Amino acid sequence: MNELSRHDHVRALQWRGDSLALLDQRKLPREQAWIDCGDAGAVARGIRDLVVRGAPAIGIAAAYGVVLAVQRAGHAAADGVRADLAALRASRPTAVNLFWALDRMQRAIAGGADAAALEREARAIESDDLAANRRMGALGAALIAPGSGVLTHCNTGSLATAGYGTALGVIRAGVDQGRIARVFHTETRPWLQGARLTAWELHEDGIAARMVADSAGAHLFRTAQVQWLVVGADRICANGDTANKIGTCTLAAAARHFGARVMVVAPASTVDMASASGDAIEIEERDPRELLEYAGTRVAPAGVAAYNPVFDITPAALIDALVTERGVVERPDGSRMRALFD
Amino acid sequence: MNELSRHDHVRALQWRGDSLALLDQRKLPREQAWIDCGDAGAVARGIRDLVVRGAPAIGIAAAYGVVLAVQRAGHAAADGVRADLAALRASRPTAVNLFWALDRMQRAIAGGADAAALEREARAIESDDLAANRRMGALGAALIAPGSGVLTHCNTGSLATAGYGTALGVIRAGVDQGRIARVFHTETRPWLQGARLTAWELHEDGIAARMVADSAGAHLFRTAQVQWLVVGADRICANGDTANKIGTCTLAAAARHFGARVMVVAPASTVDMASASGDAIEIEERDPRELLEYAGTRVAPAGVAAYNPVFDITPAALIDALVTERGVVERPDGSRMRALFD
Repeated sequence: MNELSRHDHVRALQWRGDSLALLDQRKLPREQAWIDCGDAGAVARGIRDLVVRGAPAIGIAAAYGVVLAVQRAGHAAADGVRADLAALRASRPTAVNLFWALDRMQRAIAGGADAAALEREARAIESDDLAANRRMGALGAALIAPGSGVLTHCNTGSLATAGYGTALGVIRAGVDQGRIARVFHTETRPWLQGARLTAWELHEDGIAARMVADSAGAHLFRTAQVQWLVVGADRICANGDTANKIGTCTLAAAARHFGARVMVVAPASTVDMASASGDAIEIEERDPRELLEYAGTRVAPAGVAAYNPVFDITPAALIDALVTERGVVERPDGSRMRALFD
Repeated sequence: MNELSRHDHVRALQWRGDSLALLDQRKLPREQAWIDCGDAGAVARGIRDLVVRGAPAIGIAAAYGVVLAVQRAGHAAADGVRADLAALRASRPTAVNLFWALDRMQRAIAGGADAAALEREARAIESDDLAANRRMGALGAALIAPGSGVLTHCNTGSLATAGYGTALGVIRAGVDQGRIARVFHTETRPWLQGARLTAWELHEDGIAARMVADSAGAHLFRTAQVQWLVVGADRICANGDTANKIGTCTLAAAARHFGARVMVVAPASTVDMASASGDAIEIEERDPRELLEYAGTRVAPAGVAAYNPVFDITPAALIDALVTERGVVERPDGSRMRALFD
């Protein structure tokens, strides 16, 4: 897991044996501040308050949270950490990887694992994620023809994962291989994950990129500056429908219209075969002030209303390739998804 | 021209007989400040610096600028106002209505009009625009089925025209007629015309609306909250291809994919039959800092690059209805455009 790309210096979290340090992503890029979480409650708050975000990183943080709970309880009996597990489970209700990681840790507890064994399990979740990202990077980059331009949305890089990234891992691999000639990323309103996090991460890692308005996708596709839209996922349904950051579907529809292709990159733990289709997914809405204000400064006049859904559903029909560490599903549908994930 | 809707209190400019007052749109919604332009140079600066924006409003301001030039020159001889006309013509090089209005004023000068006659001509351009907007409002609203939701982009209202608005005029008419049940508008990065201007204008006029992220279009179309995307235009080509605010094409492609319809609303003076197609239009790029900052606050880290095209081209194939004061062109193409505009 230490065999990193030359393009991967950034870390979202750091396990310290008896605490978990989280890079405070709310303060990026102004400030690189670490918050040291000494117990599971602090980890749950860090997830809830967006100190750490990105579906895979949330899962890893929660796994270490379980280790802290058991260390503090002094034993691994399920009863002793029940409240901590509930707090972690409630910290971001939509992230599938969170439940996946907590289920894995709970199975270990049920199997009688002690604190040292649970720590090994959490480290395995972290190193598995990094390995999965490097595998996805290789699989995804292989789909990209040399000389291509790519556009990504939100942040799916080292800050959102154990390292390397999902969609951004494909972009790292494609840049390293010389296949990708142009990298664009959105600013990603309202939380500005693109402007604050992806811009910072790519700049730290020396990958040349240009930021565009979230709305500029069609212009990039129409003028053939971009051949691939490469995005992550928060949840992938049994039919391939994909929930991801608001705007993903808008960009995917524009890509399809102009003949650019759409790649979704996410670990298999993001696939939820129990969700039949995107129609079953409730779209989380957040505070309208995220849209009406920026950094505490009101932009829209008083009395104006906003509607702030933070995810959208990209129908499987708009997805050209779903890249996971288990393999690539081209033009995903129910039967192709079952072939890989059942 | 004073027979206004109950939904139209806002004004972008006011002719005062020997000066032109411009509402400083850069300061909205924080402050309602008027800048009094006493000569054509001041009007040209107001256009260039975005004190006044919106293709029709720019044309009207320029027409009054010509009146001021002739008043100051003391005669209407073309030679006496040549520099002023050149300054006005250079103020926003992409706005077709600007050239159209200046051409109309120059024809009047060539025909021997004195200052008083030129003032009447400028007033006619203004009142014609208001009448055109009310006509477009009626024609466009008639296309919208009762109970529909609409989404608009940028600002195309009273602040962008002589009053009432183009796309926003259709929305005013549709709301007045009870056809439109839901109004959404984007924030419109990077200049935030939606968050600052459309939000303010609709709120001032008592029209209930909700702001969304620019990227939320597909979510609104997919969930059937919106049936029509209603937008303005900066230039419409002979084949119906339409240049408008960056993001228009992205939203139009998303609308098409999910079965929502796309209406472009613009006065006939926006149609440029000399431009064969959108491929001929050069897309203006503005300062990357507009994207790297948000409402004047730096967001992206130092050293990050941005690409800031401020218009995009919506191909005619994505447009369901082009509404002008001369009539409606459904599914515009070269022959349907020639039938109305040749």
